[in-house]
Formats: sequence, structure tokens, C-alpha cells
Amino acid sequence: MKRTSRDIRTANRYGVLRHVVAASPVSRQELAAATGLSLATVANLVGELLGLGMLVEVGFEDSDGGRPRGLVAVNSSKGALIGVDVAETYIHAELFDLTLTVRARADAEVRPEENDPAEVVARIAAAVSSVVQQAGVAADRVLGVGVSVPGQVDREGGVSVFAPNWDWHDVPLLRLLAEHLPHPLHLDNPLRACTVAEQWFGAARGRDDAVVVNLGTGVGAGLALGGTLHRGVSNSAGEWGHTTLVLDGRPCHCGNQGCVEGYAGAPGIMRTLRELSPDSPLLHPDGQTATIEALGRGLAEGDPVAVKVVHTTARYLGAALADLVNLLNPELIVLSGWVAATLGEPLLAEVREAVAVRALRRPLANTEIVLCPIPSNPVSLGAATFALEGSLASVGPKNRRTSPRWRGTPV
Amino acid sequence: MKRTSRDIRTANRYGVLRHVVAASPVSRQELAAATGLSLATVANLVGELLGLGMLVEVGFEDSDGGRPRGLVAVNSSKGALIGVDVAETYIHAELFDLTLTVRARADAEVRPEENDPAEVVARIAAAVSSVVQQAGVAADRVLGVGVSVPGQVDREGGVSVFAPNWDWHDVPLLRLLAEHLPHPLHLDNPLRACTVAEQWFGAARGRDDAVVVNLGTGVGAGLALGGTLHRGVSNSAGEWGHTTLVLDGRPCHCGNQGCVEGYAGAPGIMRTLRELSPDSPLLHPDGQTATIEALGRGLAEGDPVAVKVVHTTARYLGAALADLVNLLNPELIVLSGWVAATLGEPLLAEVREAVAVRALRRPLANTEIVLCPIPSNPVSLGAATFALEGSLASVGPKNRRTSPRWRGTPV
Repeated sequence: MKRTSRDIRTANRYGVLRHVVAASPVSRQELAAATGLSLATVANLVGELLGLGMLVEVGFEDSDGGRPRGLVAVNSSKGALIGVDVAETYIHAELFDLTLTVRARADAEVRPEENDPAEVVARIAAAVSSVVQQAGVAADRVLGVGVSVPGQVDREGGVSVFAPNWDWHDVPLLRLLAEHLPHPLHLDNPLRACTVAEQWFGAARGRDDAVVVNLGTGVGAGLALGGTLHRGVSNSAGEWGHTTLVLDGRPCHCGNQGCVEGYAGAPGIMRTLRELSPDSPLLHPDGQTATIEALGRGLAEGDPVAVKVVHTTARYLGAALADLVNLLNPELIVLSGWVAATLGEPLLAEVREAVAVRALRRPLANTEIVLCPIPSNPVSLGAATFALEGSLASVGPKNRRTSPRWRGTPV
Repeated sequence: MKRTSRDIRTANRYGVLRHVVAASPVSRQELAAATGLSLATVANLVGELLGLGMLVEVGFEDSDGGRPRGLVAVNSSKGALIGVDVAETYIHAELFDLTLTVRARADAEVRPEENDPAEVVARIAAAVSSVVQQAGVAADRVLGVGVSVPGQVDREGGVSVFAPNWDWHDVPLLRLLAEHLPHPLHLDNPLRACTVAEQWFGAARGRDDAVVVNLGTGVGAGLALGGTLHRGVSNSAGEWGHTTLVLDGRPCHCGNQGCVEGYAGAPGIMRTLRELSPDSPLLHPDGQTATIEALGRGLAEGDPVAVKVVHTTARYLGAALADLVNLLNPELIVLSGWVAATLGEPLLAEVREAVAVRALRRPLANTEIVLCPIPSNPVSLGAATFALEGSLASVGPKNRRTSPRWRGTPV
């Protein structure tokens, strides 16, 4: 039991802020009911957030003849947060106000083979500068920039430890970025960013045990267990894409064979298509995105090859999701990521059937499987949320452990 | 965030008691340091446990010229706890004092095909009565009986929901047992019992993220994540034995194919032996226990067939454990259960190698794999710990949610 009183206080502070963001304006009484904390604790935490300028008092509501209750809301003008989704095929940056409403966006294309860290860093910095300029926000009002990169990250050190699709090893990403950007910087990966976005704003709100499965070039699972993000001992948890589905199956770039990612990731789906129909016009040899989009259109048009590829993929995916159901017994599995968004409802329907064939009855009966309901990019939203959490931790009382280590030099 | 202040208080009460059990006698100051709770909170919880008679004051220690510090210890004479490990091949009951020291033991053999609930219940009741008699404890001083049965259980309802090796479905085990026994009864399964035993007394003490793998007739994984037992939404988490290792592989009694259990459970190991050497004298067709013991002896003697079977099993097990490393990123994996105890160090060494071949580098570097270090039966110890927790919850202030529903009628 290493969770200290300070950790619990920080977690409670996030919890209160999360509920205010979700339901502004809100009374302390409603916050106490929503969080399970005592009214005294909530009043104390709200006082702290008011003192920091993150919340403002916005009036009163009647309470059935009792004393009117004070309402608080997020102080949207307190500052801006930026979230950046760096993927194998694109960079997407968004600037948010403190209600996590998007105020500006910037996009850049990336090719999977353009994997030079200096080049990727320059593009991230350009996207961030672009949203700051578009929104007309002074640099010192940006409370933080959250950056999500695929693969395993050392968030405290700001290092991309291993990004298999780029073959990156120990790239000191935040140190490089700090040479371009004056803002506090926070690093994590898309699994965890998606998951936090679902917990704050999406399907996992109020759910204790949820798994957010990210289907893209790589695949992985963000684990929200017991109401909090499960990071594991070295922040590497969630590498469901590199669990074995077919012992001695397709070789994987991680060095293993038969990994889930080799069947459920975009290149794995392309391989299934190639095996089923080597000359299919759906195949765009240079483009995963184009191929998956062609499959999506093919599904809509009832193309038999597209239907067969999605059915086969759902069978693989269903077995691998049944593993999560049986092992973790979650209330909810959210299918997120661009592949899930592109193949949408038809994939969901096939996946639900395939999971039902394989999972044990009791956990299956308690698990809902849904598509990500967040209308914007959940990864940049989640990355901005990490920046908000980091900013809260760094301004809070004496919480050194979670303060951002990487703060850029003023430009 | 549904964890209420009351849940946190109950968890803290267990945490304090766990540290007193581990390090009796102990001062409030040491408990505060060990648990991360404030001294005021610890003093409060210790006061409560003293009031309940679970702890006693046992003197003072000097504190470097300051005021002498009061020491507390577990009140071993307050009452007795009983833990029962019901397995496919045996029933093992132990009676403990409140320091969780064994005071009496009883054993009964079971054959996997003797699966009539009434018969199993009668044997459990006989084993419990035997340890009570042997220890000479009055029935009303037994604070609780914890029973562990394989498979999925509804602990609040006291029901064995599904025990695949016995083909039990919805057996109301505690209601049946309450007809024989006058004590408060608590139900759970060996995965969770082992895990709690490791957290309180074994390799997982002080570890935030640990997985306790139970290798027996069935296999499964108890998940201690973030310092607490992860149960999942319907108390079904941990069915790692029913995750897919070989898509479309060996048929499993759960209805799926290629499950980990079909390769790593005792019957799976026997099948591997049969495939490699159909006429091996190591094979005892009627007895899993005898076969695994023969394999253990064969290993010690360098029998090539035994070596090959364990090597092959370790390869399966290594892939399935690498999945846990990659997905959960634990600090520790403990190999528990009778198969692990019987095959011991040679199996451990092979498994460590096989995991290293497959797991991702970063989580692998942070995971230790060990054999269960608990010298007695960890399942009955863990089951008794559940009885202790249940007894604490039921005597504590207004905690209805976790109080035992099944209290036997006085006999």
C-alpha cells in the first residue's frame, strides 16, 4: 500500500475537476454525490481549485426551500491546453480552453517511413505553434502541451522508449521539443490518452472497469481499472497488441510471432486481404489508410471480398477481445482508433458476435462493447487532459512526484 | 469514481491490520510510515481495532529520547479463523489464530469425478468440524470460515456460478454449507485466495502490481493491481486460463479452443506427455497428481521425456506469461499452485527463459518471476484472510455492503 495521502488528494482533485468539466455549473453537494467524497472534502478541494483560478463561482441554485447552493464552473479563460496526436500516418494538434472545448486545430501528414526524430519533432513544434497563433493565445497562457506518441514511453523522463513502427529506441522527445517550444510539456501514448478521454468525456464516464482498445497501425488497450488508469510498474501496461493470439503465427516487428497486432492492426488487415484476394482492387500497396477506407466503402457496397476480410478480422479480434473479457472482467470495451472509426458499425456487429462465441458466460454477460462516441479526436483530447492533470499537479501543494520535468526555455 | 469514503476506510483498516500482522509488535508511527496514512488516521484506526479486541497494547519502545511510543500487536486469543481450500483432487482445511498462525489441519481426498455438490459440502463441513475439535475452540469463537472453490463464484450470493472441471452451474454452496456449520461463511476462489495470501504474507508484500498465477488442474491469474485485488465487475477477473494461446488449438471444456489451460493445466501437461511419448511409464492415466509427481521425479533424474515435457510446457507457459507481462506490466509474477510446487525450480528456470524470448524489453526488465514462497497452503491461508476481512467489515461501523450474507444457524 504505497498510495500516499498526497496521491489520494491529487486523485480526488482530478476527480472533482472532471465532474465540474462534465457538468458545469454544479454545486458542491452534487459533486459530493457524484464523487462519493464527503461534502467537507469536496468543499476543501473546490476552495483549492477556486484559489488556483481553475474554477469560478457562477451564482446560486435553490435547494427546495433550504439555503441556496453556490454553483461553480470551470474558468474557461484561465488558460489554454494543447493536445497533440502523433501517429504513424499523421500529426494532429488541437488547442482547448479549460472546458476542453476545441479552439484551434492543425494537421500534418506523415509517412510511416519518415521516421527521423528531428523531422517529427519539427513537425510537432510547427503544429503547436500553428494552433497557438490561430487561437491568438499568448505563449504564457498555455498551461501545458500533452504529446501522444505510439509505443512505449517513459513519461517522467520524456523519452520515447520504443516505437516499433518507426524503430525508435530511447528518443529523448521532450528534450528535443523543448528546444522549439516554451510551454510545459507532457508525454504519453495514444492508448492512455484515448482511455483518459473516454473516462473524462466518453463511454467510460462513471465506469469503474473499462478497456479502451485502440485499432490503428498498431493496436493496444488502455486499462481503466478501479476507476483509475492502470499504467503498470514502468508505464508499459496495455500492450495487448503484443499478446499471442496464434502461437508461432505471423511474424511481428516486436520479434515475437502470432501477436494480436499482426491480425488486427491495419498492416495485418492488409495481409489478410492479400491472402484472401491477392489482386483485389481494394489493395493500395503504399497506403494503409487508403486500403482501410476502401474496405469501409466495400463493406457499405456489399463487396464480397471486403465482407470476407472484415469477417476474418472480426474473428481474430473477437478472440483477442474475449481474452480481455475473461482476464479483466470489464464493464465496458470501447473500440477506438482510426481503423475502428473507418470500419464502424459493421465491424462492431461482427466483433460482438465473435466475442460471444469465445468469452465465458458470466463476464460476457456483464460487458458492453461500443464504438468510441467522442466526436472529435480522442487522442489529442486525452493528451490535453494529461496536460491539465500535469498543470494541476505542478500548481498544487508540494506535489513534486508528478510535476512536469520538461518545461521549455522561453523564446 | 464510485469508491466511497467508507470503502477507503475499510481498505485502510485492512491495510493497518495487515501491517500489524506482518510486524507485530509495532508502533503507530511505524504503521504510518508503512501505510502512507497520516499518524492521526492510523491512531484512529488502531483505536477502532483495539476497541474491537482485534489488537492489544503490548508496552512501549524508546524513541531516541522522545516520549516512549506505545506498541500494539494482534490479539491472537480473540478468536479463530478457518480457511478451506477445495480443489478438484483434495479438500484442505486449516484453523488459524488471529496472527494467521496454523493451529489445526484436516485433509480429505476428492476425485475429480466425485462432483456431487451435496457430497462435496458434507466433506467440507466434516473438515471444518475436525479442525474446530482438534483446536478445542468453542464454536462461537470462530470469527469466520473462508471457503475457496475453483471456477467463478458469486461471493455476495455465496454461489459457485461455474466450476468447469466439475461442470457445476449455480450451486448455492454457502446456503448448503450453512445447514451444517454455525459460523459466518465467506466464499471465493483459489486465484483470489492465493493472491491475497501473497499480498499479506508472501512475495507480493509491498508490491503495487503483482500477478499470482495458479497452476493446478485449472489455471488462472490473481491480479493485485494498484495495491488492491482486481475483481472485475462481476468478480470473474483472472480467467487467464481461458485466454487464447493457440487459435483453433486444443479443445477446452469451456467451449473454446486453444485456451492456456489446455496446455498449462495438469490435464494439458498430461496430453503433451501423451503426444510426445504415448507409452511413457510417467503416465498415470487415472491420476493427474501422480503423473505430475512422476514428471517432477523424472526431471530430478534427468529423464529425457520428463525434460522434454517440461520444456514444451514452459514454452507454452512462457508465451502466456509474456502476455501478462506485456498487457499488465507487473513488478512480480508468482507461480503458485500444486503443479508449480511439484515441478519447482526446473520449471521456473525454463519459464523465465521462455518469457524472456517473447516479452517486450521494457516491461520484461521490470518483472520478477518467482515461485510462491509461502511454506504452508496459500489458498487456505488466503481463504482465512477473506474470513478475517469479512469479520472486520461486519463488526465495523455500518458497513453493510461487505458483511457476510451467509451465517449458519446455531447447531
